[in-house]
Amino acid sequence: MTPRRWDTSKSWSPVPRSAASGSDGLVGIGVSPGIAFAPLKRMAEPIAAPEASLRHAGDAEAEQHRLTQALHAVATELERRSEQARSAGRDDAADVLQAQVMMASDPGLPEGAGAMIRQGKAAERAIFDTFNTFRDMITSAGGYMAGRAADLDDIRDRVVAVLTGADMPGIPESDEPFILVAHDLAPADTAGIDADLVTALVTVQGSPTSHTAILARTMGIPAVVACASAAELEEGVQLLVDGSSGTISVDPDEQQVAQAREVDRLRLAAIAESTGPGATADGHRVQLLANIGGPDDVAAAVANGAEGVGLYRTEFLYLDRVDEPTLEEQRHAYHQVSVAFPNGKVVVRTLDAGADKPLAFIPTAEEPNPALGERGLRLAHTHAQLLADQLEALGQVHENDPAELLVMAPMVADVDDAEFFTRAVRNAGLNQAGIMVEVPSAAIRARDLADIVDFFSIGTNDLAQYTYAADRQVGNLAAYQNPWQPALLDLIAMTARAAAEAEKPCGVCGEAASDPVLACVLVGLGVTSLSMSAPALPMVRAALARHDLAQCRAAAEAALGERDAEAANAAAKEALPALMELGLA
Amino acid sequence: MTPRRWDTSKSWSPVPRSAASGSDGLVGIGVSPGIAFAPLKRMAEPIAAPEASLRHAGDAEAEQHRLTQALHAVATELERRSEQARSAGRDDAADVLQAQVMMASDPGLPEGAGAMIRQGKAAERAIFDTFNTFRDMITSAGGYMAGRAADLDDIRDRVVAVLTGADMPGIPESDEPFILVAHDLAPADTAGIDADLVTALVTVQGSPTSHTAILARTMGIPAVVACASAAELEEGVQLLVDGSSGTISVDPDEQQVAQAREVDRLRLAAIAESTGPGATADGHRVQLLANIGGPDDVAAAVANGAEGVGLYRTEFLYLDRVDEPTLEEQRHAYHQVSVAFPNGKVVVRTLDAGADKPLAFIPTAEEPNPALGERGLRLAHTHAQLLADQLEALGQVHENDPAELLVMAPMVADVDDAEFFTRAVRNAGLNQAGIMVEVPSAAIRARDLADIVDFFSIGTNDLAQYTYAADRQVGNLAAYQNPWQPALLDLIAMTARAAAEAEKPCGVCGEAASDPVLACVLVGLGVTSLSMSAPALPMVRAALARHDLAQCRAAAEAALGERDAEAANAAAKEALPALMELGLA
Repeated sequence: MTPRRWDTSKSWSPVPRSAASGSDGLVGIGVSPGIAFAPLKRMAEPIAAPEASLRHAGDAEAEQHRLTQALHAVATELERRSEQARSAGRDDAADVLQAQVMMASDPGLPEGAGAMIRQGKAAERAIFDTFNTFRDMITSAGGYMAGRAADLDDIRDRVVAVLTGADMPGIPESDEPFILVAHDLAPADTAGIDADLVTALVTVQGSPTSHTAILARTMGIPAVVACASAAELEEGVQLLVDGSSGTISVDPDEQQVAQAREVDRLRLAAIAESTGPGATADGHRVQLLANIGGPDDVAAAVANGAEGVGLYRTEFLYLDRVDEPTLEEQRHAYHQVSVAFPNGKVVVRTLDAGADKPLAFIPTAEEPNPALGERGLRLAHTHAQLLADQLEALGQVHENDPAELLVMAPMVADVDDAEFFTRAVRNAGLNQAGIMVEVPSAAIRARDLADIVDFFSIGTNDLAQYTYAADRQVGNLAAYQNPWQPALLDLIAMTARAAAEAEKPCGVCGEAASDPVLACVLVGLGVTSLSMSAPALPMVRAALARHDLAQCRAAAEAALGERDAEAANAAAKEALPALMELGLA
Repeated sequence: MTPRRWDTSKSWSPVPRSAASGSDGLVGIGVSPGIAFAPLKRMAEPIAAPEASLRHAGDAEAEQHRLTQALHAVATELERRSEQARSAGRDDAADVLQAQVMMASDPGLPEGAGAMIRQGKAAERAIFDTFNTFRDMITSAGGYMAGRAADLDDIRDRVVAVLTGADMPGIPESDEPFILVAHDLAPADTAGIDADLVTALVTVQGSPTSHTAILARTMGIPAVVACASAAELEEGVQLLVDGSSGTISVDPDEQQVAQAREVDRLRLAAIAESTGPGATADGHRVQLLANIGGPDDVAAAVANGAEGVGLYRTEFLYLDRVDEPTLEEQRHAYHQVSVAFPNGKVVVRTLDAGADKPLAFIPTAEEPNPALGERGLRLAHTHAQLLADQLEALGQVHENDPAELLVMAPMVADVDDAEFFTRAVRNAGLNQAGIMVEVPSAAIRARDLADIVDFFSIGTNDLAQYTYAADRQVGNLAAYQNPWQPALLDLIAMTARAAAEAEKPCGVCGEAASDPVLACVLVGLGVTSLSMSAPALPMVRAALARHDLAQCRAAAEAALGERDAEAANAAAKEALPALMELGLA
C-alpha cells in the first residue's frame, strides 16, 4: 500500500500522503515485521523555535522571574528522573540525567538571556538564543563536549515547553507497554526508546528507508510508517499493529487479535524452517548478508544466519572523538568482524562522513545541501590521508585474517572516481575494490564502471533520494522514497545487467533488500546478493526459498512494466504465488 | 577542456580541479563568449565567521573601544562612497549606501555586542553574533525588511574585516576597466558588477551552470570559469581572456592580442550573418528561444533573434514582497512578454520557490537539503491556491493574447506529479501542459510521462546536480556539473527518444543549450528546441546552420560513446568540421 501524494479525485486539494483505510482499520507501510497489541501513547510534537521577533509585555523583571522558574522546574524534573533511574539500577542513564541537571542549573543561562530580556525579547526566545550560543561554544570545542550538544538541545526544548505551555517533548513515560504513535521520529528521539516498553512504532510520515524504519528493524520492534490516519487516533485506544502487512486495527475484538497472532505464528514457523545459505526454490544461489554498524551487531547477524557482512559501516570509528582512530584501533574493529565469518565475506564501506556527519578532527565548511556536498569518497579530495590510513589498516587485516575482505567506496559518481578508488585499494594490498551504486550517474553508466571495479553494491536509500531529488529526511516527500518506485527499479535493472555482462557480482545493501517481496524482484532483476538488517534475513530467506528464479524474473518483469510504486508492488505479488503461505499477500 | 578531479599520475595526491596549462597561458572553461584585454584585479576572499570560541585578552573596555572604532570606520567609508555615487548621478546606489550608513551607526550594535564582550567574547565574534540576531529579526519581519538582510551581511563582513585585518570584501573599486579574478562568485557578489568596468570574469572554481556563468552571459561579459591556475596570477598583470575557448594569456604581446581580436571578428561576422529561424544546414528546424527572468529581458531576446521564450522564470513576481501578487499584476507581467512574440511561443514555468528561495507570505520550514526539499511543484501539496491563482492568470492571458502560451511545472518526478499538473493546467483553460525534466526519475521514466504531458523541457543544470548528486553551488564539485558528462547525455537521449516516440516536442532550457558545440549534439540526440540566455543565440544559430542533421547525429553518437566529459567534447568536435570557421575548434 503506497501513500498517494495527490488525491486524484479532486483537482485543487492535493492530499499529502494520505493513508488508505482498510475495512477494519488503517493501513500504512509495514517496515518492521511482528504483531503488537497494546494501548496507544502519542509522542509530543517537537518544540519549534520561538519567533525571533517575539517580545515580552514590557516588564523585564517579571519576564526574568518567569524564566528562572522554568529553568528550576526543568532541573527539578530531571533530578527526579535521575534518582528514579539510580534506584532502578540504571546508573548510566542516571549519570546522563545528572549532567543535564547541572547544565539546566548553570547560572550563565539566566544571565545570558537576561541581557536580551532587558532589550525586550520574550523569555522563550531569549533562552532559546542563549542555549544556542552555548551550543555553538561546546560544538566548536569539539570532541566529547560536542557530543553533548543533543543533551543541551533537549534541555532547551524542555525549558521552552514549560515557558510556552507546550507538551513536554520526548518519548512519553510509562510503566506499562504501549504502542508509540508519532508524526515522525528523528534519530535523537528514537535513541531513547526502550524496547521492553515500546511494543510497536507507528508514524504518520516516514518511509521504508527512514531512520525510524531502520531502527525498528534493528531493535526488532514491529513498525508501520506513512499512516496518515494515525494522526487522528485517540490517546489510550487499544491498537493491533501488524508490522509485516502495515495494517492497524483500532479496538480489535479477541478474534482479530487471535487471527493476527495465528498469521504471525505461520510467519514465525516459515522463518524457523528457513536456514542455510540463501537460494531460490530451484537452487539459484543468492548470498544473504547483514548490514552492520560495528562489531556489536555481529551477534545478531550470526544468530539470523547471515552468510557474511554486505555492508560494514565504519563511521562509528570516527564520530564522537577528538582524533583520527589509530591503525591499531581500526585493525581491531575490522578483525573483530572478520573472525566472525571465517568462511564468509565481509564488505567494508570506507568512511562516509561529510557535512551532515562532521568529524571533530576535520573542519568542514557549512554546505547549503550536505547530501549533495563533499561527502563520502569526495572527502578524499582534501583529506587523502584519512582514506590511506583506513585502507592500510584494512590491508593488514586482509593479509592476516581468513575471511574474504572486500572494500567499497561511498558516493562514486563517474569513471574518475572509480579509477581513483580502485587504484588506492590495490595499492593497499587489497584485491577486491567495489563501489556503492547510490548516485544515479553510477547506475546509468554502470557499463563503464563495471570494467573498472570488482563489484557493485546498490545503495537503494540514497539512490532513491537522488533519483527522485527528494530528501530522505523530509516526511512530506516519503512517497518518493518508496523502493518500488519504477525509475529506481529501472536503475537497479541497468546496474545488475551491466554487472552481469562484465561477470561481476552486484548486491543490494539498501533497506529495499529487507522487503521479502522486493527481495524476490531484485533477484529477478539480476542482483546476486542481498544485505539487510539482521532480523529481516529469515523472512527474506523464506520468501526466496519458496519461489524459483523464473518466478522471480516474471515478478521483476511485471513490476518494471508498471507506472507507479503501488502498481509495481501489486503486479509483483501476483507473480509470486507462495507469498500467501508466509502471510505476506 | 574539463577540469580533472583526480590527478591520475599519483595515487595519494588527488588534485582538486586542476586546470590544464596551455602552451602560452591558462585554460579554463569558456562560459560567455568575447575577448577582453585589461589588467587583473582580484576579488577579496569572503569573510569567514569568526570562531565561536574566540575570546579577548581580558580587557573588555579596550575590546569595546576597538569595536566602536571599527563600526565608525565602516560607516565613514560607506558615507564616502555614498557621496561619490551621489555626485556621479547614481542616486539609487547612493540611497542604498546611505541606508547602510544608518545601519552601521545603529547604537544597538555596540550595545548588543557589549554584553557578550563583557562575558569575554572577542569583538569580532560578538559583533558577528549581534548582526545575526538583527538579521533574524528583520528576516522574520518579512517583506521589504527581509530583502535588506544582504545589506546587513555586507556591513557585518566589512566590520569583521576591519577587526581582523582581512581584505575588505566585495568587488574591488577602480576608475579603469579591469578583468575580475575571483575564487568563486556568489549571486550577491555579482549583483555589484558594473559591466563598463569589469571587462571579463575569471573564476578559479565555478562551472558552466554556476551563477557566475549565467550572469556573465546575461550581461554579455566574457567569462572563463574553473581555471585553477588563475589563483596564482599577480594583481595588476595584463590578461587576454577569450570567453569562447576558455583560454587566458598572461602579458600577451601585441600580435597575440591582434590575433585574438581577429578570431573574435570571425565569430562576430558569423554571428552577424546568422539570422532567421534556427535550422541545420539541411533545413532541419530547431526553434531557438530565450530564457528570461521577467519582461525586462524581452528586449535582448528580440535583439538576438529569439523565436520566442523557452523558459519564462516567474519567481520575480513572488520574491521580495509581503503579499502574493494579485491576478492583475500577474496578467500584466505575462501579457508584457506574450505581446513581444505574437507569432512565437512563450513557455512559462510556474513558480519554482522553496526553502532556498523563501517567500515572505509562505512560512517554510528549514530544510536539511533545500535542493532536495519541498520546492517547485511540491509546494502545491501545502499551498494549492498559489498555483491555482497563477494558472488562472495565465489562462486569462492565453485567452486574450495571440502568442502561443505554454505552461510547465518545475520538479516533476513521477506520473502522479505529471497527472496532477496536467489536470490543473487544463482546468484553467490552458491547452499546453509541459514539465521540466530536471529530476532524474522524470528522464528515466520519460516514456511514461510522454503519454501524459504535451511537451518536455530538459533543465540540464538541476538534472546534472541530481544525477551526479553534486551541489551546483559547491565549487569543489563543479566538474560533475560539466554538461558533457556522459550520464547526463544519456538521460537527455532517453528523454528525447521518449518524446519522439510519443510525437511530443522536447526542448532543452538549461545553460547547456548555450554551448554551440553541445547545441549541435543536443539536436543530434533529438532535441527539438533550444532555449538560452539571449546573447548566446547568434553563435548557436551559426553553429547549427553550418552542420547538417547527419553531422549532428554523428557528433551525438560519438559523444555518447565516450566515458568522460572531456573525451565526449573532443569526439563531438571532431565530428563537426565547420567549428573551425567559427573559431570554436
